[in-house]
Order: sequence, then C-alpha cells, then structure tokens
Amino acid sequence: MTLENISCQKSFGGWHKRYKHRSEVLGCDMVFAVYLPPQAEQGAKLPVLYWLSGLTCNDENFMHKAGAMKMAAELGLIIVAPDTSPRGEGVPDDPQAAWDFGLGAGFYLNATQEPWSQHYRMHDYVVQELPALVEAHFPASQKRGISGHSMGGHGALVCALRNPGRYQSVSAFAPISNPMDCPWGQKAFSNYLGEERARWREWDASVLIGEAREKLPLLVDQGDRDDFLSVQLKPEVLQQAAKLADYPLTLRLQPGYDHSYFFIASFIDDHLRHHANALS
Amino acid sequence: MTLENISCQKSFGGWHKRYKHRSEVLGCDMVFAVYLPPQAEQGAKLPVLYWLSGLTCNDENFMHKAGAMKMAAELGLIIVAPDTSPRGEGVPDDPQAAWDFGLGAGFYLNATQEPWSQHYRMHDYVVQELPALVEAHFPASQKRGISGHSMGGHGALVCALRNPGRYQSVSAFAPISNPMDCPWGQKAFSNYLGEERARWREWDASVLIGEAREKLPLLVDQGDRDDFLSVQLKPEVLQQAAKLADYPLTLRLQPGYDHSYFFIASFIDDHLRHHANALS
Repeated sequence: MTLENISCQKSFGGWHKRYKHRSEVLGCDMVFAVYLPPQAEQGAKLPVLYWLSGLTCNDENFMHKAGAMKMAAELGLIIVAPDTSPRGEGVPDDPQAAWDFGLGAGFYLNATQEPWSQHYRMHDYVVQELPALVEAHFPASQKRGISGHSMGGHGALVCALRNPGRYQSVSAFAPISNPMDCPWGQKAFSNYLGEERARWREWDASVLIGEAREKLPLLVDQGDRDDFLSVQLKPEVLQQAAKLADYPLTLRLQPGYDHSYFFIASFIDDHLRHHANALS
Repeated sequence: MTLENISCQKSFGGWHKRYKHRSEVLGCDMVFAVYLPPQAEQGAKLPVLYWLSGLTCNDENFMHKAGAMKMAAELGLIIVAPDTSPRGEGVPDDPQAAWDFGLGAGFYLNATQEPWSQHYRMHDYVVQELPALVEAHFPASQKRGISGHSMGGHGALVCALRNPGRYQSVSAFAPISNPMDCPWGQKAFSNYLGEERARWREWDASVLIGEAREKLPLLVDQGDRDDFLSVQLKPEVLQQAAKLADYPLTLRLQPGYDHSYFFIASFIDDHLRHHANALS
C-alpha cells in the first residue's frame, strides 16, 4: 500500500494533497485528494469525512469548488475525495462514451456483470480499501463520516446504510434517492448489476433506509430549482421511506438553488458541522 | 448597452449571473460574471468590487474557486469578474497561441501596436465601459474597489494608480509587480506597446506607485512558495518603490502558499473586508 504524492498546496493553514496509488480492489491506478487541516500537524488523530462526487467528476471538483476547507480547518476535519470510477486504459467505458455511465460514473457499487465486474467495484474501494490507506498514511482516526452530491449522494447514503458501524455520520446533497426508478440509475444498474431487479434493491437508498438497523441522523439538502429534481433525484421517495421506517432524516428543500457547486458551497458548512458534531 | 443574461445560479442567498454584451471599446462580444449578494434585492445601491483574473482565465475562475461569495453576502458587496482579454473570431491571438500572450492575456492595458491596438484595450474596458454597464443595470453605487491575481493583480494596481478618484479601495494577490522587468511583462509590453520603454512605464505598478497622487491603502498578499515569485512577480520591487514614495502598502508574505486559488481562497475574506471597510 504505497502512496505517490502528486501535488501539495497549502490551504487555510493546512494542506490540499493529491495521491496516486495502485488499487487492488479496482485493478487500476487511482488518484484521490485529501485536505489535511492545520491540526493534522499537531499529533492528534482526526476524524475523516469522505466526499463522493457526482457524474463526470473526479477528485478535484469538490476540493476546488465547494469552499469547504475554511470550515474543515476550523473543525479539524480531514476530507478525502476519491475519483468517481476506476480509471485507466484497461478499464472498460460505455461504448457510446456517455457521461452518465462507465468512466466517471461508477455509481459506488460492486458490479456483477461483464465487462464491468472486474474493475467497477467502487463500493468496496470507498468503504474498505481507501479508508485503510487513509488511516495507515495520515493522522486519521477511525471516526468516519460520508457525504456526497447527486450520484455521490446516492453513494454516501448506500455506503452508510449497507455498513452499520462503519460510519458515525452521513449526509448528502441532491442525492439520486431512488436509483431503481430513475433513468440514470436504471441505466447504471441494468448494466452493472444485470436485469434482475431484486439485485438493484441492495443499492437503492430508499429501499435500504426501510431496512436500516442503524439510524444515523441523516441531513439532506436539495435545491428546488434543480433541473434533475423530479426525474432523477426524487427526494420525496426517500422522505416517505424514512417516515415509514421512523428514520431520522432532515430533508431541507432550499428555495431557488440548482444542482451546481454554488448550491453545495452555500450549505457545505452546515454539513461539515453535522459531521463534526457526530465525529468528535 | 444591452446585456444578455446567459446563466443564473443562486449562491449564499444571492445570485451568480453571467452576461454577454457587445463591447464598443474592445470591438467584440464579451462575457462577464457578477455576484449579487442578497442585499441587492432590498433596494439599496451596493458597492462593487472588480476582480481581474490572471493569465489563461476567464470570468469563471474566481467565481468558482475563490470561495468569496459567503463573505460578499455578509458584507453586501457586489463582485464583478470580467474576462482577461477581448475574445472572438476577429480578435488576433499570439501566432504561437502561447498562454502568456494574446487571448486570455490582455494585461489590462490599451495596446498601441498593430495588430493588437484595435481590440486589446482592456484598461478602458475595465475602468470605463464595464462599470458604466454595471452601474446602469444593477443596484450598484459608484463606490468601486478593484483587486486581482497575478496578471490581474498587476491590472488592479495599474487601474487604481492611473485613475485617481475612480476607485476607493485596491488590493492584489501575487501581482506582477514590475512587468517592465520580467519575462511575462516584457513579452506583453513589447508586443502591445512597442519597443519604446518609456511607454512601458505608464503600465508598471512599481513605477506608477512612485508618482501616485492618491494614496489608497494597498493590501497585497503573496505566497512565499509561489513558483513565479522571483522571476515574474517581484513584490520586493513594489515594496521598495512604495517605501520611497511613502505609499501605504501592506505586503504580506504568506509562508507555504503557492500561486493557486487555494492561496486566494485562504485570504480572500481579508481582502473583502479591506474593500468593504473603504467602500461603505
């Protein structure tokens, strides 16, 4: 488990660093970004927030655009941002190179179908391999939070709901809340998981939340001017499922906001505080 | 003077908007971005901070990466970010399409040499035409501040120093402080202004600061790990000139920071407060 540091930039008294490493789980080289707050140089082990980005993104979007580092530096939170799919020449992509499937669109699941199942195992990468790396190489405690945006919001909810005890906090921005029943999710699930819809249920937050054994308070922000709201995101399905299961979901519909990083930046501090409260 | 709105996104309770318009000064269509804080919807006229970006940038870099909107919303500051050069098919570019000259590298001056002099008049665009547009179309007062980064830091200093009374506040991040005496500046000045160095003096902040009639307090931040520090930026020349002229310059050498937007984001709030104090 060696890490190659590929960049290093001071930010809010801490450091934004990018690392390349071989992923055994994904069978390819991967890059992730980490923000180490100033407290990381003071010896204590710090909690880690994992941020999962949306379709087409890589490790850079959140770090450049979310404006999260100021508050992370105040709170003493490490932030880790992985890529959104396996990468590299040997990794298959959508034959039409569509932006909503294949490279940049791993959907944070473990694929079971050929030709995807060899590399597209982002769930195990995000939940197991990456935290092991992070906790071995950085002053990171085993306090873990997870959040994300859109496809990454789906990923954050599913990672937390599938792995009780693994995370102590969870939140999401504009998550794909019911991927079984939206075009993005159906395209991804039918290719990665096959046509048997029973398998899809294992990766759908609105299903999983109804069966949750652990009930971490869940904060979800959603812009009401988000172009993807009604067709792809469907927070009302998640809300209904949470209500039925008595799951502690706080869903905030933010008036006027869209699907962009301006929306994320506007509310990221609330999410960072939500995580820090649970992690410290 | 018509403006075509090309995008609109809510951010920190206000709005990030991009506009396209015909520039008479530049002889081409231009795009600029504006951040309107929440107070813009409450009727009062607000002060405006003009942000000039660096080489290769356009109106988007600052708005996406600087993390400035939260504080601008608190302070009630409008921020306007123009492009960094004239644009479009009729606008000449560097024959080698180099990134440090021509498109994306207008240097905020008025060119006098062919083929540049017809379009490359960014100084007049930034100082006159753009504020006239902004003050006609938005709830903007005539209180104006100006700041920028690298080439845009040079631009901010030169715009303020050449136009006493036009701005009430000025600052810069990692400005090209003495363009007459660095490779970026010499390439730009010799092409845009010709070989007569006496003309170059009119566009060099370290010269102009020695002749300043108006002495606005000037805040400059500079990372000490900036790769361009010693060859291109030379803040020590500006500092020496300010000292000789008894010009109120606060130059802060920030340990560990580089030339990136992570550096800008880390200190933008200080600059916004510096401007708001002078403008309100």
